[in-house]
Amino acid sequence: MFRSHTCGELRIENVNSEVTLAGWVQTVRKFGSITFLDLRDRYGITQVVINEQLNDQLNENPLGREFVLQVKGKVIERSNKNPAMDTGDIEIEVKEFSILNKSAVPPFTIQDDTDGGDDIRMKYRFLDLRRNAVKKNLELRYAVNRSTRNYLHEKGFMDIETPFLIKSTPEGARDFVVPSRMNQGQFYALPQSPQTFKQLLMVSGYDRYYQIVKCFRDEDLRADRQPEFTQIDCEMSFVEQEDILNMFEGLIKQIFKDVKGIDYTDKVERMTWEDAMWQYGNDKPDIRFGMKICTIKKPESVYATKSDQNELIADAGFVVFDSAESVLAIPVQGGAAFTRKQLDELTEWVKRPQIGMKGLAYIRYNEDGSLKSSIDKFYAEDRLKQIAEAAGAKQGDIVMILAGAEERTRKATSELRLELGEQLGLRKKEELKLLWVLDFPLFEYSEDDNRWVARHHPFTSPKPDQIKTMIDNNPKIIDAANYLSHPYAQIKANAYDMVLNGNEIGGGSIRIYQRELQEKMFSALGMSDEEALHKFGFLLGAFEYGAPPHGGIAFGFDRLCSILGGSESIRDFIAFPKNNSGRDVMLDAPSSIDDIQLKELSIDIKKKE
Amino acid sequence: MFRSHTCGELRIENVNSEVTLAGWVQTVRKFGSITFLDLRDRYGITQVVINEQLNDQLNENPLGREFVLQVKGKVIERSNKNPAMDTGDIEIEVKEFSILNKSAVPPFTIQDDTDGGDDIRMKYRFLDLRRNAVKKNLELRYAVNRSTRNYLHEKGFMDIETPFLIKSTPEGARDFVVPSRMNQGQFYALPQSPQTFKQLLMVSGYDRYYQIVKCFRDEDLRADRQPEFTQIDCEMSFVEQEDILNMFEGLIKQIFKDVKGIDYTDKVERMTWEDAMWQYGNDKPDIRFGMKICTIKKPESVYATKSDQNELIADAGFVVFDSAESVLAIPVQGGAAFTRKQLDELTEWVKRPQIGMKGLAYIRYNEDGSLKSSIDKFYAEDRLKQIAEAAGAKQGDIVMILAGAEERTRKATSELRLELGEQLGLRKKEELKLLWVLDFPLFEYSEDDNRWVARHHPFTSPKPDQIKTMIDNNPKIIDAANYLSHPYAQIKANAYDMVLNGNEIGGGSIRIYQRELQEKMFSALGMSDEEALHKFGFLLGAFEYGAPPHGGIAFGFDRLCSILGGSESIRDFIAFPKNNSGRDVMLDAPSSIDDIQLKELSIDIKKKE
Repeated sequence: MFRSHTCGELRIENVNSEVTLAGWVQTVRKFGSITFLDLRDRYGITQVVINEQLNDQLNENPLGREFVLQVKGKVIERSNKNPAMDTGDIEIEVKEFSILNKSAVPPFTIQDDTDGGDDIRMKYRFLDLRRNAVKKNLELRYAVNRSTRNYLHEKGFMDIETPFLIKSTPEGARDFVVPSRMNQGQFYALPQSPQTFKQLLMVSGYDRYYQIVKCFRDEDLRADRQPEFTQIDCEMSFVEQEDILNMFEGLIKQIFKDVKGIDYTDKVERMTWEDAMWQYGNDKPDIRFGMKICTIKKPESVYATKSDQNELIADAGFVVFDSAESVLAIPVQGGAAFTRKQLDELTEWVKRPQIGMKGLAYIRYNEDGSLKSSIDKFYAEDRLKQIAEAAGAKQGDIVMILAGAEERTRKATSELRLELGEQLGLRKKEELKLLWVLDFPLFEYSEDDNRWVARHHPFTSPKPDQIKTMIDNNPKIIDAANYLSHPYAQIKANAYDMVLNGNEIGGGSIRIYQRELQEKMFSALGMSDEEALHKFGFLLGAFEYGAPPHGGIAFGFDRLCSILGGSESIRDFIAFPKNNSGRDVMLDAPSSIDDIQLKELSIDIKKKE
Repeated sequence: MFRSHTCGELRIENVNSEVTLAGWVQTVRKFGSITFLDLRDRYGITQVVINEQLNDQLNENPLGREFVLQVKGKVIERSNKNPAMDTGDIEIEVKEFSILNKSAVPPFTIQDDTDGGDDIRMKYRFLDLRRNAVKKNLELRYAVNRSTRNYLHEKGFMDIETPFLIKSTPEGARDFVVPSRMNQGQFYALPQSPQTFKQLLMVSGYDRYYQIVKCFRDEDLRADRQPEFTQIDCEMSFVEQEDILNMFEGLIKQIFKDVKGIDYTDKVERMTWEDAMWQYGNDKPDIRFGMKICTIKKPESVYATKSDQNELIADAGFVVFDSAESVLAIPVQGGAAFTRKQLDELTEWVKRPQIGMKGLAYIRYNEDGSLKSSIDKFYAEDRLKQIAEAAGAKQGDIVMILAGAEERTRKATSELRLELGEQLGLRKKEELKLLWVLDFPLFEYSEDDNRWVARHHPFTSPKPDQIKTMIDNNPKIIDAANYLSHPYAQIKANAYDMVLNGNEIGGGSIRIYQRELQEKMFSALGMSDEEALHKFGFLLGAFEYGAPPHGGIAFGFDRLCSILGGSESIRDFIAFPKNNSGRDVMLDAPSSIDDIQLKELSIDIKKKE
């Protein structure tokens, strides 16, 4: 060992001990003939004092930032203690030192507030990883990993490794593929998730499986997507949805406890997908604050069981509302105090192309009970009051109103709600709020192909009482304009998402375990029998030999860590991430390969067209 | 939940409880109007009794093997208890049952001694995984996983994930590559190991890293090699070889304890590579038994510090020994009793092409002190006695002697020793014997390229006192025939292998951490500066910014599990293994992919030439 102690562990009790430390030079400060060093390692920083008798050696071997140093000496009490440092009571009086390795001057400072930009830090990721901020993130990631494994182990789950070189069955996202040298012209695929394998493990009787596992998707990268990412992947047999919800809200609570020291004693709220969309315009609502949507007007085809309040705005000759498919309102507490400027800015904000609204109406419900509105040309004050109160506003509040096509308007209202929540400080970082969103639609309509696609994935089961609807009806969509009236549009799935502070952190479903139903699902998604057999024959086959009822969930591990770490970016929680073009700029990968490798794989690179 | 208890947990204390079980029908036995079922799940088997009042339902819904069944009923005491079963004291008197899923007749029996051959069991792996024997293997694997993580966590190691989509730097084995869609004509590679990443993590200051991680090698598969395999991968900073040996023999002892209940209190033996070769003809000797090699004759160029005993055989006019480069002997305890037939069979055995010897000489050292030999035409009895005693034989033993070219003969003698050890029952499965093999040569001579190759890998450091030899000498080999006289042939590495019962279960080294030495190593391996920079520029760059002394080890996880499980085959310990052609026969992968996928990747498949 090059050290007797780490740079983080010496305390006042160690005074007079002879110790050996090894680490990196964080700073060098000379006071006359005495040199003070901060020596850093993974565990902390210790102050080191080199007195004048070693000055000759120091002069011959000048020290610089990030040099690797070994020092031997005595622990002494500091005269000017530093209570901000764990080791702040002591320092090392150096008797001998040796330079284990030199360092060039780093291209950026190894500090929390580094002077290095994103690009240079990615290129020199091995230096960026030395910064305390990044180290804390990886430590948090490991803590989440450890907590997850301990909880699942206690609950009888087994970590079973599934293969990485599998079969390409693109359905949804693109596969990364791997040419096989031994089977010319054939390819393996890297798994987008271990979905079918974990289901096979259920068929095999391993009734509680988990893995913390890399998955791969060859998608055009949006900000904060990675081509390889990590999942906490779980599956259970002989369970119903309720069992899964209980098991995995337990997991997340345990992680909160182990990693953040937070006792999450609240009941985890639950909401149907329909209610989430109705009240928040969003299938992953941030429920840390209210400001729920009031649907003043909606088309008949959606939210069939819910009523709008169109009578409040109809027949007033206001063409914007009259011609809109939907009119949605949110109340903003205390918003009556918004200035003209603030309202103008919010109006500009909703008119940005990303939001795409034509304008923003408001009703100001003043503290004195009077009402003032951008639409008071069309509505008398008592009508404005009715609308404001329907939206849940009280005196002192303001109501924001958007109008337009249902889908876009609901989305815009949700965005506006989140923006206002942000501006008003209602999305508190230190507050963690969990929510289960339930009863997702089983199918989504794909306009491009005029067919159904699986909203979750093709292995998700419908609600038991809707299996018959699925079996008995032809999935074919005759009248594309009225796809919502097709019976399939109403089928709900045994699917659930866990939402934390407005982020989907996990999702799963109770699976289909009957061959006939699985076949019906594949055909509903436009797959021929032949294609289904070619891609998923092994799973259909497995379902013939006693598949148990089963279901599971997968958590986005990178995302979960970033939320717990209070960061927007998952990259900060990955040791060696790729940039937004899928490149590892440190390695310079991907890169060209040797002709001999191409030849062995029997592939040619096509010329650019 | 579909069950209140598992099929493995009910005991006599549970009698009279109302319970619900779910599982697979292992067997159905009818006795008159009563039906007995064995219901199986991951946890065990419980006997279930269906009385005549449910016969109508049974007749309408006949049960078969591997049906998935849910039963509700009362736990009752069995009249004929089965002490061989954990649940053998009780049975379930069924009040209602429901078939959760049917099963076709499985293509082989789900029993320890199944009637299914290898191929069918691989195709239906999801059924093979139901067999108790396979389940026990995966449970053992998980136990090793868990034990490893717990030990390393206790010791301050952090699990840090390294990337899977990296850069192709073939050196030794072939990389699997992944075409990049977004970077036309460029490829990622799948890691053969996280070697360079774990070294970068050391440079970054994470001084104790581990991962249980998939690695990939596109090699022509020998029996029991898998294109994807799992490593326990570890690295430490500020350590010397001794620290690593202590840390990781501790890991293996902990695994023995946790998984096998074995207290390995013996000191782990250590042996230099040279001694291993000298005494056992093998760099991973099985030291559960003796039978060490006696080198009667050897060429001068090898084992320069060791002496042979050529004077015992020289000048006797025996042309076979006189013309041989090497003459090696092993003593076989009690072997004087070998029959003529046994000796003939052993002679045939060494003459097989895999061993490649021309013949086998022996000296029988009879119980009465007399000696009898296949070469007594050339050697008088007292000389035979001298040879026998030099080889370590005593009265009642036999000495086996092989002669020929050094390398082949030593290998053959090692093989013969292992074969005899097997035949004589000296390789006891229940005995676990650990050994560190140390001081490997840094370089190996490659005849094909007339250059040095790294015996371990290019990141392994030479012994400190031999760095100068490496730096000061030109690696170029002028006289190929006498490559052993090149100074590089004598350089020993700071490398170590852990051997368990004659199997290498792990290996590692203290690494190079100085840029100049690493550059010298790359050039010694015939890499141009340009190539070294292109492939490993990131690592060379990292070494400029304060790389600490570091070293590590990697264990073959699949192999370790198979040895602990007492099996020859690693496939038995992998949930979804590939066959010897690298195919997953269950999935039918690799397979062809869509033209649209090829087009997006800008690659063509070359026609067969």
